[in-house]
Amino acid sequence: MSVITLTTDFGTDDWFVGVMKGVLADLAPATRVVDITHNLEAGDIRGGSFALAASAPYFPAGTVHIAVVDPGVGSSRRAIALRTKDAVFVGPDNGVLSWAVRDQVVEEAHVLTNATWFLSDVSQTFHGRDIFAPVGARLSTGSDLSQAGAKIDDFVQLRWPGVRNFHDRLLGEVIHIDRFGNAITNLPTAELPAGKIGVSCGGKATEIHQCYADVSQGHALAIAGSSGLIELAVNGGDFADHYGVGIGTPVEARWDQAEPEWR
Amino acid sequence: MSVITLTTDFGTDDWFVGVMKGVLADLAPATRVVDITHNLEAGDIRGGSFALAASAPYFPAGTVHIAVVDPGVGSSRRAIALRTKDAVFVGPDNGVLSWAVRDQVVEEAHVLTNATWFLSDVSQTFHGRDIFAPVGARLSTGSDLSQAGAKIDDFVQLRWPGVRNFHDRLLGEVIHIDRFGNAITNLPTAELPAGKIGVSCGGKATEIHQCYADVSQGHALAIAGSSGLIELAVNGGDFADHYGVGIGTPVEARWDQAEPEWR
Amino acid sequence: MSVITLTTDFGTDDWFVGVMKGVLADLAPATRVVDITHNLEAGDIRGGSFALAASAPYFPAGTVHIAVVDPGVGSSRRAIALRTKDAVFVGPDNGVLSWAVRDQVVEEAHVLTNATWFLSDVSQTFHGRDIFAPVGARLSTGSDLSQAGAKIDDFVQLRWPGVRNFHDRLLGEVIHIDRFGNAITNLPTAELPAGKIGVSCGGKATEIHQCYADVSQGHALAIAGSSGLIELAVNGGDFADHYGVGIGTPVEARWDQAEPEWR
Repeated sequence: MSVITLTTDFGTDDWFVGVMKGVLADLAPATRVVDITHNLEAGDIRGGSFALAASAPYFPAGTVHIAVVDPGVGSSRRAIALRTKDAVFVGPDNGVLSWAVRDQVVEEAHVLTNATWFLSDVSQTFHGRDIFAPVGARLSTGSDLSQAGAKIDDFVQLRWPGVRNFHDRLLGEVIHIDRFGNAITNLPTAELPAGKIGVSCGGKATEIHQCYADVSQGHALAIAGSSGLIELAVNGGDFADHYGVGIGTPVEARWDQAEPEWR
Repeated sequence: MSVITLTTDFGTDDWFVGVMKGVLADLAPATRVVDITHNLEAGDIRGGSFALAASAPYFPAGTVHIAVVDPGVGSSRRAIALRTKDAVFVGPDNGVLSWAVRDQVVEEAHVLTNATWFLSDVSQTFHGRDIFAPVGARLSTGSDLSQAGAKIDDFVQLRWPGVRNFHDRLLGEVIHIDRFGNAITNLPTAELPAGKIGVSCGGKATEIHQCYADVSQGHALAIAGSSGLIELAVNGGDFADHYGVGIGTPVEARWDQAEPEWR
Repeated sequence: MSVITLTTDFGTDDWFVGVMKGVLADLAPATRVVDITHNLEAGDIRGGSFALAASAPYFPAGTVHIAVVDPGVGSSRRAIALRTKDAVFVGPDNGVLSWAVRDQVVEEAHVLTNATWFLSDVSQTFHGRDIFAPVGARLSTGSDLSQAGAKIDDFVQLRWPGVRNFHDRLLGEVIHIDRFGNAITNLPTAELPAGKIGVSCGGKATEIHQCYADVSQGHALAIAGSSGLIELAVNGGDFADHYGVGIGTPVEARWDQAEPEWR
C-alpha cells in the first residue's frame, strides 16, 4: 500500500484538510493518508520544513510527502516536486520541502505545470486541494514525475542554521520548541565526544543526561533527542517557557572541564 | 473503496471520535474514514453545516457523510439520512445536514428508527457512537436506506443568508471565519462582473485581488475564495481579528465607480 | 483488516504522531490506525488510562491498543504488553494500560525486551516511535506476544476511585471533565434504583434527567453518561467551569426522599 503524508498550516478547525483527503480518496483510493501535522503557525515555512525532515525518514520507500505552507499561493511562486531515492516531495517552492532533502540526493526536480493533473477548477487560494493533492495522488498511483512539468535545476532552500565547532565546544541555536516545551537545538549528538557534556541555553547551565527522570521533577536537563539533536527539557515541566527560550536562542555544549564556568 | 466522513463538535481531547471510529472499524472494516473537522464550537450546527457543504462536493460518489452536532441528543429531535445523486448524509435533524444538500435534489429522506441497525445499547448522550456511526457503516457497506426507517417528506433546513442584488453592487454578510482569520462572505464570485470590484466590510474598504501577495504584508484585500465566495483577508495577518469582523457582519461588493467612496 | 489505536500526550502540533504512523505504515501496511486522542495533558497517565478504557470495548476483536503517556521514558520503567480475550494493550508500565483491563482477565502479560522487534536505533526520549509502534505493528500482523519478552506476573495498576454505597445514596467523585465541560463521575448508572435520583456536586443539587434538553438552556442536570457513569452537565453550557468542579470533586447520588435537602 502506498502512502501520502500531509504537512500544513491549515489547522483542524476548518474543512481544509478534510477536503484535501476527499480529493485523495477520489484519485488515489488505495493510498493511505497520514497527517504529519496541520497545526503549524500560519505561514511557518520553517516549522513545516523541520517537521517534514524529522518524519520522512521513518516512512516506507515510495511515500509521497505533500507539504502546504503557502503564503504565496496564487502568486508567481512555483509549485514543485522533488524525488529522492526513497520519497517524493510535493509543495510550493518556498523552502518548505528543502530540509527534508537536505542530506539527500535530489534525483529529479520538476515544476508542476501540467494542468491535466490538477482539479478542473483551480482556485487562487487553495492549491493544497486543487494542485498539490491531485498531483500527489497521481504520483502515488504510478504517474511519472517527468510528466508533471518541466525539469528544474534548482529550488528554494532554507538555510540550515550552522554549528560552530571548537576543540572544546559546539555553538549553535534552538531550532524548534515542541509541545512539551522542550527546546530542540541544531547540535548533533553525533558530534559530541563521550563523557560529561555541559550544555548552556537561556541562561541555564545543565548537563546531558540519559533520561528525563535522571533529574528531579521540575529540574532542567539536556538530553540526546529523538532526531539526533541535543534537546533541553525540564522533567515534568516546560523548559522554553521557564527559561524564556525560543527559536534562535544560542546554545553551547562544552566538554573541556569537569566543572564548567558558564558565562 | 467506500468513504465515510465525520464532522462533529466532539473535539479531539476526549475519546469520542476515536470510539466512533472503533464502531466503524468493526462494522465497515473496508471503508476509509476521513475527518472533516471535530473542532466546531460546541453546538455550532451552522458551522458544521457550512463545513460539510464546503467539503462534500470533493469526495468520491457514494461517500457517506456523518455530521454530529447534536445538542438535542436524547430528546425528540429526529435522526435522519438524506440521499442525493452523489452522497448520503447522516445526522440529527437540526439543520446540520441542510447546507450540504442546498443545491441538490434530495432523492430519498428517511428517519432513522430501525434499531437493529444501532448498537445494542443506545445511550442517551452519544448517538454519534450508538446510532449515527453504525447506520453510516451499514449505508457504506451496501444496506438500503429504505430499511433505515420511514420515509420523510421534510427535514430541518437552516436559512442560507440571502444576498441583495443591485445594479451596481451586492450586499451580503460574513458567514465563516477561518483559522487564518479570513472572513468568508456569502457573496458568490460568479455573480460579480469582470473588472475592478471594491469590497467593504468591518469599516475597511478594499478591492478584489488575484492573490494574497498582491498587497503588502499586513494589508487587507478581498479575493475569490476557494468555495466560490468572496473572502476578506490580510496578507500574513488576521482580517477578522484586526477589523472586528464576525459571522453576520455586513459586506458590500461594488463596481459602479473607479474610485468608490465607501460609507 | 486489523486495527491499531493510538492514545498519547504528544499533541498534534509536532510530528510525533505522524512519525509513529510512518513506522506503522512501514511495518503493518494493511493495518488501520485509529487515533483515540493525542491531546492528553503532558504526563496525564490517568487521563490516558480512562480514555483507553472508555474506547477499547467498541473496537473489533484483535485490536492492538498502543498508549504512550510516558514521562519515565528512558528510565528503568518497563515497557509491557497485555493480552485480554479481545485485545492487546501496549505501552509503558506506569498504569496507562490498567483501567482498560480493569474488568478483564489478562490472559498474557509480557515485558518488551526483544530488541529485534524495535527500530534499529532506539532513542532515549521517543519509545512511541522506536519501541511501541514497531511492537504494536508486529503484534497486529500476527507475531506472537510470547516472543516480545519475558512473561510477567504483575504490572502497575492505577487505583480506580472507590464508590461508597449506602442504603439511600452513593458517594463518589468526578473522574473526568470532557470537552463540553461535562463532569463524568465514578457513580455507575447500573447501581442506582429506578425513580427520582438527586445528584449533588460542586455545591449544585440537581436530578437525573433523560436528555440535556429536559432542562432549560443554561441549567444544570445529571444524566446517565455514555460510559455507564453518571455525568453532570449544563444544557448548552460548561458545568465544570461554572461550578468550579474538577477531577476528585465529591459527588453524591441520593434517592431517599422526594424533596432532598442538599447540604
